[in-house]
Formats: sequence, structure tokens, C-alpha cells
Amino acid sequence: AQIAAHVQGEVVGDENTDIVGVGSLEGAKAGEITHYSNRRFKAQLASTKASAVFLDSNSVELCPVNAVVVANPQYAFAQIAKTFDRRNLTPKGIHPTAQIDQAAKIGNEVSIGPNVHIGPDCRIDDGVELCANVCIGAHSVIGAGTSIRENVVIYHDVQIGEHCVVHANSTIGADGFGIVPDSSGMLHDMPQVGGVRIGSDVSIGPSCTVDRGAIDNTVIHDNVKMDDHVHIGHNCEIGEHSILCGRSGLAGSVTLGTYCVLGGGVGVAGDGPLTIADGVEVGAMTYVSRDIDEPGRYSGATLHTDNAIWRRNMLRLNELDALAKRIKQLEKTLTDKVSGSEAELRSE
Amino acid sequence: AQIAAHVQGEVVGDENTDIVGVGSLEGAKAGEITHYSNRRFKAQLASTKASAVFLDSNSVELCPVNAVVVANPQYAFAQIAKTFDRRNLTPKGIHPTAQIDQAAKIGNEVSIGPNVHIGPDCRIDDGVELCANVCIGAHSVIGAGTSIRENVVIYHDVQIGEHCVVHANSTIGADGFGIVPDSSGMLHDMPQVGGVRIGSDVSIGPSCTVDRGAIDNTVIHDNVKMDDHVHIGHNCEIGEHSILCGRSGLAGSVTLGTYCVLGGGVGVAGDGPLTIADGVEVGAMTYVSRDIDEPGRYSGATLHTDNAIWRRNMLRLNELDALAKRIKQLEKTLTDKVSGSEAELRSE
Amino acid sequence: AQIAAHVQGEVVGDENTDIVGVGSLEGAKAGEITHYSNRRFKAQLASTKASAVFLDSNSVELCPVNAVVVANPQYAFAQIAKTFDRRNLTPKGIHPTAQIDQAAKIGNEVSIGPNVHIGPDCRIDDGVELCANVCIGAHSVIGAGTSIRENVVIYHDVQIGEHCVVHANSTIGADGFGIVPDSSGMLHDMPQVGGVRIGSDVSIGPSCTVDRGAIDNTVIHDNVKMDDHVHIGHNCEIGEHSILCGRSGLAGSVTLGTYCVLGGGVGVAGDGPLTIADGVEVGAMTYVSRDIDEPGRYSGATLHTDNAIWRRNMLRLNELDALAKRIKQLEKTLTDKVSGSEAELRSE
Repeated sequence: AQIAAHVQGEVVGDENTDIVGVGSLEGAKAGEITHYSNRRFKAQLASTKASAVFLDSNSVELCPVNAVVVANPQYAFAQIAKTFDRRNLTPKGIHPTAQIDQAAKIGNEVSIGPNVHIGPDCRIDDGVELCANVCIGAHSVIGAGTSIRENVVIYHDVQIGEHCVVHANSTIGADGFGIVPDSSGMLHDMPQVGGVRIGSDVSIGPSCTVDRGAIDNTVIHDNVKMDDHVHIGHNCEIGEHSILCGRSGLAGSVTLGTYCVLGGGVGVAGDGPLTIADGVEVGAMTYVSRDIDEPGRYSGATLHTDNAIWRRNMLRLNELDALAKRIKQLEKTLTDKVSGSEAELRSE
Repeated sequence: AQIAAHVQGEVVGDENTDIVGVGSLEGAKAGEITHYSNRRFKAQLASTKASAVFLDSNSVELCPVNAVVVANPQYAFAQIAKTFDRRNLTPKGIHPTAQIDQAAKIGNEVSIGPNVHIGPDCRIDDGVELCANVCIGAHSVIGAGTSIRENVVIYHDVQIGEHCVVHANSTIGADGFGIVPDSSGMLHDMPQVGGVRIGSDVSIGPSCTVDRGAIDNTVIHDNVKMDDHVHIGHNCEIGEHSILCGRSGLAGSVTLGTYCVLGGGVGVAGDGPLTIADGVEVGAMTYVSRDIDEPGRYSGATLHTDNAIWRRNMLRLNELDALAKRIKQLEKTLTDKVSGSEAELRSE
Repeated sequence: AQIAAHVQGEVVGDENTDIVGVGSLEGAKAGEITHYSNRRFKAQLASTKASAVFLDSNSVELCPVNAVVVANPQYAFAQIAKTFDRRNLTPKGIHPTAQIDQAAKIGNEVSIGPNVHIGPDCRIDDGVELCANVCIGAHSVIGAGTSIRENVVIYHDVQIGEHCVVHANSTIGADGFGIVPDSSGMLHDMPQVGGVRIGSDVSIGPSCTVDRGAIDNTVIHDNVKMDDHVHIGHNCEIGEHSILCGRSGLAGSVTLGTYCVLGGGVGVAGDGPLTIADGVEVGAMTYVSRDIDEPGRYSGATLHTDNAIWRRNMLRLNELDALAKRIKQLEKTLTDKVSGSEAELRSE
């Protein structure tokens, strides 16, 4: 009943059941609560050993155990699951080994772990958690309630909004990749003097890189969600509520719309700046080399097959244009012959 | 002779040769030992300047220098090469700057480096090496003889078996990527309350990410070998003796069999959970989007070619289905004509 | 005028204009200087609000504001932009929390940050910057003027030249990926006893991995430029002035020539050692599986398209060889018929 109240749901069954943990439909044991959010798992619901299940009003009859009826079972489950998280939070206060520049402004109720390093003129807002070994460069801002996990490096002039999370070993604000050759052919790094601006409610997975802008900022708007190993080049702009799956990467100056989804391993890189419209979903491992102007689903990756067949097909692919021309020639020859035959017939 | 004894081999040549290092067949100098394991390098064997060569009994005649005859020359070489490794091990004991929770259990003969951070209720078994700046979250276990290299982050509730190595800057147990939209379209992170279970004799390269499970654990079985930048999504299960090459990545809930090999840059991601059978080899840069049920070799990546030819072929690829239909139509027209001609002939 | 002198340019306009920052052609405000290096931006030049513009002698007439005429406007701009960089440099000296082996040789004017860890027998040359939490293994050398950013891990026996930069969370010298099965099928790591040799004027982005050699060294020659998440396998050799864009990766024993450019996400991996000639450009997301002997542009990635069309085309791709054979058969049938008709005609 307490749980139901917490998520504004209604109990169908025993209101006094004790819930001591969360589980999956299939794996939950007695005492655990789970959720039923996808009709594909109907069979698992029928045989679940959970003590209670979040589900919507259409599914109450299917449930063999206690039900908590809510509008969005998955979201209700998320709220409850959070309470069973066992992560050791960084203790409130500032660890004695932390190195904080005297000109940094530190808010209330912060949790700053061992060996954290904060540069001059930074602002760390209320309730921020900086885990062990986090480094933050000059002039950077971490918004209220944001959690930066172990060994993350945040360069100078990076602003991160409220209630974000950045997972371990990610790097925010390293130099964008701009190369200038001099007259001798020697390559020089173009200084990257822009910063990074990240909105609120953004999640960034471990081992991600968000590069600083060359002159203007790299911008990640509110509520963007990034999985592991995602790479954002300099001067990209990522629209609100967009999702970037693992190992996806954007070259410099890509503008991605709102409510987009990039599948795992997607690469976006063109000859110059490139724009992807709102509401675009790109399938895993796809290469996007030009603008996408309309919302919808797009893909490009090839499918796996038996190795020997694959090799033959791929060699053919490298002569596909010639094959297409041969088809055209065949069509022409055949049409000519037919016309010819008809002409012959007519002349007879 | 000492070396031969160490690997249970038999010396053909001078038993008293001093070996002071290891080398390649081509690059070895006098005083070094090398190995001959692949008939492709026959010419290099003939001209080697090494003082001794591990080889099998069939190759003794080919060897111009001292030979150490063993069943598996490469493996014998590996055992000897190990003794010439010059890595500076973390000194035995606990560095005074390490931060260890009082409730952590620390075994005998451990080597814990500077600024290591160990959370509550951890267990660090005998002979473990934790290099500088390693962070370990609550309730985690590191098995005997395992070596965790510099700046690795291990989250809470992660168990790693014995004799493993995790290379620098890898992250084990960060949150899996689960996103729940609420009714307003706002995206929320699904709490990831499962852990990670890694077996024994596992190697994990630098900059890898193994995400924790959503509810149940992510599981990596014994003797899995992972190269650099490998990404393992939440609730994956990787079978024993499987090899994942650099930059390969698995979306959530992928089950990979035993004795599999994923080439570099491979991506595995489908619409839902996905299973790959035992003994499957996947070629580099392949996208695996559905189950693979039979052992064997599979590939999917396209081959490079001249840029101008490539562009034409790729535009054709996006009309391939239409081309295939035109072939079918041509076949039909031609068959009709032939039948027609025959009919005509018959009617004449 | 001061700026012009600094880059050996000539002012056309007011020599006394104060420049307080740098900007883009489009975004620059009064007081800022920008550059015009690409005719595509002619319209932006005409309407720029910058106080001065670097440009070449052919473009002076197009400039509505003060001009600084130079041979290479982009390079001149780079030199000036550098002076507006706001990164907080690590202070000169050795931070009291740094852990430096007594047998390490430390040069003059070094900047060694908090919690830096330097192993035995290292050499840190004059003017080197080691940012917070950098770890350096035994017998390694960092050349004069090189900057190693936060949380980088450099293993033992790694030599880095002068005036290089290695960005945060990169790992140089982790073990290469060599696997040796024993007779029971158990996989063992081949010891990697080679080192890494990196030349001068090299830049390495964040989250890169350059693995150490198996026996001989992995070699990166002078003036190589690497973006984020780049992976270099053991015993690779990268030629001078080559550029590797984000998320590109080389398997072991790849030799890449001079002045090469690998696009984002490129993967290079063959059955054995693989060589790419000087002056080769490879398009983004391309898989290179065999040698490239001639300079030029090469590509291989497929192009994205509408999801439904894509799926049909990709299924067809897996039968492309059969389609090609059907085209050949059609051509043969048609030729036979034509010859047949001609024969008939002749016989009539």
C-alpha cells in the first residue's frame, strides 16, 4: 500500500504484502515486486513468483498475484527500484584529500570525495556529488543535484546543469579535433577556445567524450541520454530528449534534433556541418553522411551472413554499378528485339 | 637447459647457451630466444639470429640454431617471455594514501597502491594488486591474484574472480542503459540494481565498459578475453573462453556462447534479447542483428574500394531491390518470348 | 598591429584596433578577430561583425572590416587563438601529493600536479606538464614541453617525444592483445614485452588506447594527430603527419604510411600484418581488410536510407552473387537467341 501510494497506484490484492526488493517477471522471488509493460511477456506474467506486479488497468485479469494498477507500470517500477539501489554515495562534506582552489564557490550539502581536484573560479552547486578522483578545470559549473562519478575529467569552461549524472572515466571538454597544416606540411592543433554547455537531466555513460567547441560552444540540451563510449565532436548541438546508444559518434558540427535515437555504433560524419531533423531514429551501426530532413526510421548497416557467401557478395558489391548497367543494356536489347520483331511482323 | 626444463621441452643443440631476453624470429639478437609456430615464417626461421628457438618436433631440421622442442612452441614462449616482463609491480602492502573503508576485508599479501579507494563491505582476496587510483564501490569482491590497473573504476556489487587482469581506465559496473519515458515525454534512467559477475582467468583491456544488470546480473564467465574499448551492455552473458576484439560492443541482453570470437568493431544489437551459439566467429566490423544458431564463421562488413567507384556502387545499393525485380522481369520476358517463338513455330 | 606583427601579416584598415578575443565569421562580436579561409563562407565574411579578419591577399576586397593579410589565414588565426586559451595550467613545481620514485629523473620547469604517480627509472624532461592523477610506469620517458592531461595512464617502457599532448583518460602502453591457447583449450595472454615509441609534435585525444608491442615496439612517428577513442593495436607503425579521426581503430601489426587520413569509425584489420601506403585517405566508417598500395581516396561504408527500403535491399545484398549470375545467364540466353535468329535468317 505504501508503494502504491508512492506511485499513485491502486492495489488489487493484499494491501499488507511486504516488499523487500525488485525483480524481473521471470526471476522475481517472493517478497519482490516487478512490472508488466510489454505484451510479449504475457507467459512470464502468468507464472511469475513475484509478490506484486505493477501493470496497467487492462492487464489486471492476467495477473496471478497482487497487482498495483498504474498508468505507466515501467515508470512506477523505476521509482520503486531506485529505493533499492545499494550504491555507496560519497559522504556529505569535503574529503580532506580533495584539492579545491580557493576561488571556487562550493554550495551547500555537497559530497566531495577523496582526491577530487577543482580549479579556480568553479561553481559547485548545492547537493552535487563529486566522486573520488574527479578533476574539474577552471571556470566550470556543476549544477545542483548532479553526480559526477569516479575518475571523470571535466576541463575548463564546461557548464553542466542540474540533476545530471556523468559516469566513470568520461571526459567532458577535451580539445575538439581541428588540424591546421602550415606551409611546410607540418600539422598544428587549432586551439579550441569554445566551451561545453550541458543542460539539466542529462545522463552520460562511462568512457564518453564530449569535446569543447573550437570557438563557439558544444551544446547538449536538457534530458539527453548517452550510453557508454559515445563521442560528441566539437560544436555539435544535441536536441532535448535525444538518446545516443553505445559506441555512437558524431563528427564536429553535427546538429541532432529533439527526440532522436541513434542506435549502437552509429557514425555521423559528412564533408561539412550536418543536420538531423527532430524525431529521427537511426538503426545500429549505420553511417549517416548527409542531412536527414524528415522524421522517421533510417538504416544503412549490412546484415551478417555465412562467411563464404559474404565474401562473394561483397566482391560483387564492388561491381554493382556495372551490373546495373548490364541490366539496363539487357532491357534495351530485349526492347529493340521486340520492336524489331514487331517491325518485321509488320513489314511481312 | 633451465628454460627447457621450465616448459618441459628438449634441447637440440647447446644446453649451456645463456638466454638474456626474448625476440621475434626476424628481430631477435644473439642471447635471445624466439618461437616458430607458423609455417608462413619458414624463411625467417632459416635466417634467424636468435640463440634458441622453441619449435615442435616436425621443425627441428629447419632450425639453424639451438632448438627447444616442445608440443606448443607459442605457449612455451609465452611462459618464458613472462619472466622478462619489466612492469613495475605495485609494492606489497597498503600505500598510506589509500582510502579503505573499515568494513572492507583485505586478504594477505595484497598490493594496494596510492590513492586507491575501497568502499564498505568489500572483500579483497590474497595477492590482489590494486594499482594507483583504483576505485571500488561497496559490496564488491576481487578474487585472489587478480590485478586491477591504474584508474580503473569498479562500481558497487561487482564480483571479479581469481587471476584476472583489468587494464587502465576501464569501468566495471556503471549503470546499464535503460530509459523510461514518463507521460510528458521526459526520459528517466531506469535504476540498474543488478550487479556484475566476472569469472576467473578473465582479461579486460583498457577503456572497456561492462555495465551492471538492470535487475539480474551481467555475467562474464571464466577465461573470457577482451581487447581495448569493448562495451558489454547490461544483462549480457559471455560464455567461457570467448574472445572479443577491440572496439566490439554488445547491446543489452546479448548471450554469447563459449569459444566465440568477435572481430574488431563488431556490433551486436537487435530488437530484443539476442543469442549467439557456441563456437561462432564473427568477422571484423560486422553488424549482428539477429540470433546465430550454428557454429561457424559469419561476416557482414563491406569492402573498401576507390572512392568514386564506391559512391556509384553505394547509390546503386540503395536501389538493389528494384534491380533484382528488373532481373526477374527480364527473365520472364525472355521466357515468354521463347515460349512465344516456340508456340509460333508450332503453329506454323 | 601587434597581432599582425606576431603572424607576419599586413594590416589593411585601422592599425590601432583593440582585439580582445577570437570568434567565428558568423558569431564574432566587436573587438574579436576571425579568419576567412574557405570561399564557401563568402556571405558570412560580407556580414561579419568582427573587428578584424585574417585573410589572404586575394580576398582583401571582400572584407567589410579591418583585414590582416597573411599567406595562411587559418594558421595565423590558430597562433592568435592560442593566446586566448583559458585553460588553467598545472602550476610549476611538484605538488606535495605527487608520488615520484626516487630513481626518476625530473627536468627543470616541470609542472607536476596532485596525486601524479611516477615509477622507477623514468625521465621527465624540461617543461613537461603532468596533470592531476597521471600515472607513469617504470623506464618511461616524457619529452620536453609535452603535456599529459588528467587521469592519463602511461605504462612502463613508453617513450613520448617533445611538444606532444595526451588528453584525459587515455592509456598508452597497456598490453597488446595476444592470446595463446594451451592444449586444454584454456586461453592465456601472450606477455607483451615490447614498449611504445611516440615521436614529437603528436596529439592524442581523450579515451585513446595505444597498446605496447608484443616483442618489438609499437611506433607512432612525429606529428601524428589522433582524435578521441582511437585504438592502436600492438606493433602498429603510424607514419609522420597522419591523421586518425574519432573512433578509428587499428588491429595489431598495421603499418600506416605518412600523410594518411583515416575517417571516423574506420577499422583496419586483416588476417595478418597489413600495410597502407603514404597519402591514403579512408572515408568514415570504412572497413579496410587488405593492403592499400596506392595513394588516393578509398571508402567502403554503406549509405543510410529509409528503414523499410534498407531492409529489402540488405536482404537482396545477401543474394547478390546469385543475381549477378542470373544477369550473366540472361546475357547468354539473349546472345544465343540473337545468334540463333541470325543463323535462322541466314539459313532461310
